[in-house]
Amino acid sequence: MPIITLLTDFGQQDGFVGTMKGVILGICPNASIVDISHDISPQDVDEAAFVLRNAYTYFPEQTIHVVVVDPGVGSDRRAVIVEVPGHTFVGPDNGVFSPVYHHESDPVVTEITNRAYMLPEISRTFHGRDIFAPAAAHLAAGVKSEAFGDRISDFIPGNATVPVLHENRIGGQIQHIDHFGNIITNIPESMFTDVTDGKTFVIRTGAYGFDRVCTSYADAAAGEPLAILSSAGFLEVAVNGGNAAERLGVKRGDRVEVAVSGQK
Amino acid sequence: MPIITLLTDFGQQDGFVGTMKGVILGICPNASIVDISHDISPQDVDEAAFVLRNAYTYFPEQTIHVVVVDPGVGSDRRAVIVEVPGHTFVGPDNGVFSPVYHHESDPVVTEITNRAYMLPEISRTFHGRDIFAPAAAHLAAGVKSEAFGDRISDFIPGNATVPVLHENRIGGQIQHIDHFGNIITNIPESMFTDVTDGKTFVIRTGAYGFDRVCTSYADAAAGEPLAILSSAGFLEVAVNGGNAAERLGVKRGDRVEVAVSGQK
Amino acid sequence: MPIITLLTDFGQQDGFVGTMKGVILGICPNASIVDISHDISPQDVDEAAFVLRNAYTYFPEQTIHVVVVDPGVGSDRRAVIVEVPGHTFVGPDNGVFSPVYHHESDPVVTEITNRAYMLPEISRTFHGRDIFAPAAAHLAAGVKSEAFGDRISDFIPGNATVPVLHENRIGGQIQHIDHFGNIITNIPESMFTDVTDGKTFVIRTGAYGFDRVCTSYADAAAGEPLAILSSAGFLEVAVNGGNAAERLGVKRGDRVEVAVSGQK
Repeated sequence: MPIITLLTDFGQQDGFVGTMKGVILGICPNASIVDISHDISPQDVDEAAFVLRNAYTYFPEQTIHVVVVDPGVGSDRRAVIVEVPGHTFVGPDNGVFSPVYHHESDPVVTEITNRAYMLPEISRTFHGRDIFAPAAAHLAAGVKSEAFGDRISDFIPGNATVPVLHENRIGGQIQHIDHFGNIITNIPESMFTDVTDGKTFVIRTGAYGFDRVCTSYADAAAGEPLAILSSAGFLEVAVNGGNAAERLGVKRGDRVEVAVSGQK
Repeated sequence: MPIITLLTDFGQQDGFVGTMKGVILGICPNASIVDISHDISPQDVDEAAFVLRNAYTYFPEQTIHVVVVDPGVGSDRRAVIVEVPGHTFVGPDNGVFSPVYHHESDPVVTEITNRAYMLPEISRTFHGRDIFAPAAAHLAAGVKSEAFGDRISDFIPGNATVPVLHENRIGGQIQHIDHFGNIITNIPESMFTDVTDGKTFVIRTGAYGFDRVCTSYADAAAGEPLAILSSAGFLEVAVNGGNAAERLGVKRGDRVEVAVSGQK
Repeated sequence: MPIITLLTDFGQQDGFVGTMKGVILGICPNASIVDISHDISPQDVDEAAFVLRNAYTYFPEQTIHVVVVDPGVGSDRRAVIVEVPGHTFVGPDNGVFSPVYHHESDPVVTEITNRAYMLPEISRTFHGRDIFAPAAAHLAAGVKSEAFGDRISDFIPGNATVPVLHENRIGGQIQHIDHFGNIITNIPESMFTDVTDGKTFVIRTGAYGFDRVCTSYADAAAGEPLAILSSAGFLEVAVNGGNAAERLGVKRGDRVEVAVSGQK
């Protein structure tokens, strides 16, 4: 069974996602449809890109990932199919595929223009239903991407927040607050480990500082903040049994600094 | 694989929906179950009817739609199966199927009374699990509706809010606020187009007026309100990149007026 | 198709659950995955145990239930497989399987230690993805529990709140507030029926008392509180068409008393 994943900012109340699934099953009845998230903050392309980045590599090869966070729906922003070895992506050309462009080499990007693979009527405001769901279903049913339209090379690459690496300091920021209030920085585990290897260090965010990295949440006292390496491969600040973003009073985009101070 | 959709006000926290799916899979193991929404406002039959209306026609023929928004659970309200060409519906006889009765001709309605197709124990408060899920699963497994009970013709038709059409004016109302805060009126696109064809007009709701219909959200300036034709086929008021219901300070049931003022 | 259910406190926004599904489908492509809930309050093991209790018996035999409410992730808490006739459970050994241990006899509990059935890299903070999802998928694909590690008998049994039964009085408490605000006590229907059989009684919680049990929500006037027997087999206090927990101003853990006062 071909797998199609859905990642949107549609929420759960209006039936938008269910409608997309109905369209998919009408075109490709044996598709296995998996929700990644529908609770992306409205129109937040960067948040969707971050969630996509953390999820897509865990799916089997040939999975088709549909992402619809689409503030430009109905305008002249393009609809695209992005293909890399093992994964195919369908969605608006608005930068939401930045992690794919960043982590994979030689993506093949096709603009979706062939009306034969869309619903007969195209609304102004719901291309998830009218264009993206049908495209994913036709791909899952075996239609090749070249049938959908022309290859393009001027796709929108999107944003990637990368930390600034100084001699004894990493200048990063908070790139995501998760459901638990865990603070996910944009400092990769590998950069953090390289810079602090064998050295004493301080991680600072908000008014807090941490001079060690815990190996589990429970490694800190109950209710206490800690630094840890997140499951997505970034430096994280959490509270054992609590909500770190609330406790520290920080939000996405706030500064996180790692300062190396000497030999351990 | 037979498709069964679920539309409820059960929320996501208590496992009510998962339990219904367990019951369905125990009776019809190859059912493909699709969620339409479980975040209908508690006991809001009209909201469920609106969401059902927008979704069901996008599903393949033979789909079985289970709707459980059921304030009368355990009382003498009836449980019904509603059949129209291509679609079957299962749920309480409380008006939630009003869009089906309104849009489809000659619905066949069966009261569910045969205990053989219910769980052995029927609770007072959870007929989604004990009656509706088993009924849908038995239908999906091939049982005919006549086996469930008698045909009825005195089913509850439910409410349909329709705008009032005056010579130069449409008097409508807000029938839904969606996840994005978009304001969906009850004025059909076709009525709006007919009345305003070749004329100047003003759409008024809250303290705002609009004298044109945009072709995309991005057709208005960022953060600005606009009128547009919604994906569900009604006149809509939105804010480009924002929440229109909050911005305009309106709610479901508030008035929306279209006044035609002269030749364009 | 083997069925795997998922019950977590992961919420819907970050893609954690979708990622687990990707891992499962990569190992066992024909698994049918059903969500029970992902909106358990963060780290609330008792709430997860209550939701699990109400749901798991409604699933077909051989279903594998994955529960990840795991405040001790990354610490030395153990990962376990719990097997009882007809059902298999996978999750942390932190008491979340208390209803299984309480309702089923002779559970077979296996500690998961075999790295061959985990993802190659084990994160500090997301064993749902790295250990529990792969374990469930390998079980669904036919691997026997003994291949995962050693049997253990010193598993953590967890909490079970049971009411105190006096001669003419049941001293219970609120064990759950559901999505509708219904107040679910820990007083089993059978205990309540036995104690009050043929007697007059008063059920007290907050500032309210009830001297009868309704047969449906609609059996009380609209907006009025009532007592009823819940679909999970406990005494419940609800409001017809409203939110009982808000109306009565009560919360989980608050006292509920049934006092028997004489012959009817």
